[in-house]
Amino acid sequence: MTQSSIAQLETPALLLEEGRMKKNIARMRDQLARLKVNFRPHVKTAKCAEAAVAMCGGAPGPITVSTLREADYFADHGFTDILYAVGITANKMEHVAALLQRGVKLTVILDSQDAATALASHAKSLSAKLHALIEIDCDGHRAGILPESPELLTVAQTLADGGVIVAGVMTHAGGSYDCRSDAALQAMAAQERDRTVRAAMRLREAGHAAPVVSVGSTPTALFAHDLTGVTEVRAGVFVFFDLVMAGLNVCAIDDIVVSVLTTVIGHQREKGWTIVDAGWMAMSRDHGTETQPIDQGFGLVCDIHGNSLDDYILVSANQEHGIIAHRNDGAGEALEVMVGTQLRIMPNHACATAAQHGRYHVVDGSAAIVKTWERIGGW
Amino acid sequence: MTQSSIAQLETPALLLEEGRMKKNIARMRDQLARLKVNFRPHVKTAKCAEAAVAMCGGAPGPITVSTLREADYFADHGFTDILYAVGITANKMEHVAALLQRGVKLTVILDSQDAATALASHAKSLSAKLHALIEIDCDGHRAGILPESPELLTVAQTLADGGVIVAGVMTHAGGSYDCRSDAALQAMAAQERDRTVRAAMRLREAGHAAPVVSVGSTPTALFAHDLTGVTEVRAGVFVFFDLVMAGLNVCAIDDIVVSVLTTVIGHQREKGWTIVDAGWMAMSRDHGTETQPIDQGFGLVCDIHGNSLDDYILVSANQEHGIIAHRNDGAGEALEVMVGTQLRIMPNHACATAAQHGRYHVVDGSAAIVKTWERIGGW
Repeated sequence: MTQSSIAQLETPALLLEEGRMKKNIARMRDQLARLKVNFRPHVKTAKCAEAAVAMCGGAPGPITVSTLREADYFADHGFTDILYAVGITANKMEHVAALLQRGVKLTVILDSQDAATALASHAKSLSAKLHALIEIDCDGHRAGILPESPELLTVAQTLADGGVIVAGVMTHAGGSYDCRSDAALQAMAAQERDRTVRAAMRLREAGHAAPVVSVGSTPTALFAHDLTGVTEVRAGVFVFFDLVMAGLNVCAIDDIVVSVLTTVIGHQREKGWTIVDAGWMAMSRDHGTETQPIDQGFGLVCDIHGNSLDDYILVSANQEHGIIAHRNDGAGEALEVMVGTQLRIMPNHACATAAQHGRYHVVDGSAAIVKTWERIGGW
Repeated sequence: MTQSSIAQLETPALLLEEGRMKKNIARMRDQLARLKVNFRPHVKTAKCAEAAVAMCGGAPGPITVSTLREADYFADHGFTDILYAVGITANKMEHVAALLQRGVKLTVILDSQDAATALASHAKSLSAKLHALIEIDCDGHRAGILPESPELLTVAQTLADGGVIVAGVMTHAGGSYDCRSDAALQAMAAQERDRTVRAAMRLREAGHAAPVVSVGSTPTALFAHDLTGVTEVRAGVFVFFDLVMAGLNVCAIDDIVVSVLTTVIGHQREKGWTIVDAGWMAMSRDHGTETQPIDQGFGLVCDIHGNSLDDYILVSANQEHGIIAHRNDGAGEALEVMVGTQLRIMPNHACATAAQHGRYHVVDGSAAIVKTWERIGGW
């Protein structure tokens, strides 16, 4: 745990600014306290116990996961109330059973009669009651049953008949990523609330307790004005933020927590290129800002202290090579730094970039590494 | 090691067809034997000892790596002649020293005077002679010194003066990925050969031994007619092939070795969508076929036996969700399979997709898993 300088790190390496992370968490927690809703942070961005504890306010609390491997890992770290937020399938029931067996209060989701029938048929063999949320389509973005669909009630009845606890409804307003104004984000947050609360009302009218109304996306959570009827929020990417979120005006560039430390390995000056040892293996292939007003390529280039060099981006990425050029077509102005110089690259999408790494080198705002946090991957 | 069925696997999971892999390796090895050049396979695609041994003809041989972490891992598995094919930097010299110390014959690459000066200054402190290849730009695609550049000779002299062995030259014809005909690929292979051999000749005329002329890309290796003057080839992705290679007409769809096993988790029938549990975390964000005549989305959908359902592709990918639709805009024809059905998705880019997984489930052409191979990642 002795401090060392990032100048001594082999590159590429993933850096995490803990002070920024704490500020982002405080912002979200304050917002949800104001809105009087519970928080069940999505831990798929960080996949790291230390970050999840901070998201939960200092001790393990309710969380959302994207894989059952995450459920195992977080259960190992004292988290016992876990929502697995990807539609459940039969080939995962053995894993679900093992989690219940060890005492995890696991909630699964589904959005079809087929899945409800399969779940009900497995439920009897489980050692504890399984909780299920029915996924609601609030924006046409991805999965879910429409709030007014007859299927909502038949699915709930199938679950109840099979002994599964109909815990309520959940949705993910992925459509918020396509919003292009604060007003559009506010409207999306209201729509997410209205449609999900409506679905829960229908379940309750049909005799199900359905106490949980769970919504979740970082943009709608931060732009919502009123979440009456919603019981919990599952935002996740806010913990690190990224260039896509900055492009949505949900955060500032200076709020971005993780960056990839890289080293200049060469130049092609006549092309305006500076070549570094961070390619898509270190950054991911995510190019989420491509459809936003400001295309940040495969990442925004910063100096070693994390100060953005506004005009330089990673324009191209091979497996272990990245090409930095001026954002205006690399027209002649190569970044003039010597081979061996270290830079940082901020990511388009924090979830995708962090997933390429096995640990975070936690820094304190200067160039000193104060600790290392492991993260997990896989299924 | 008992056989089990892939129907029992939790999804997503990475499958590897060993029979296809052996066929692809035999094709490359036969081609290079015919061309009378040595083979130094690039192991960055598979990152797996069992696959690398097969690429080397049945026992550890010379290999190319993309990270020093790979060098460590393959040294642990008996590989002692290793080329690290990303420009070397000062912050990696401690790692280089450790590899030499354990007896690895390590070759590094560089393409600038700055890097040569830095390398020469470190070379004196090493326990063994370090070999270096000077990277040549054969196609304007990425890195390298032009074959006729004066810098080629000053870099070589700096290395020699510092006690580094000037082993020769290397290039990567990444431009071959942009070729759109067999004739263009043949021409690119000839250009790659001519420019690299020319650079080696200049070094030899200046008094350096420079015995090695190393070229490498799967398309040029397979389309070359004559590699006179070239001493070794470093192709890599051929071991698995992928949709990008099929789009270049370098392989057939049925030659593709790895695929991601996934399960249907829902439908949005009015949109023509089938939703599966393989998103970008399982497939990567690589969309390399986007600029080819046939855009395969984030992957081509196959049945559980690996037979392509030609008309269905992964049109969209979130972290753990993929959306399958008909390739003609998903116009109404959803793939009619029940929730719980298993499918396979073939990847755009085998290196990127395999990197998202920790192991290969090796299958034998049917749906039986015959063994599991671990793979490594990170730096």
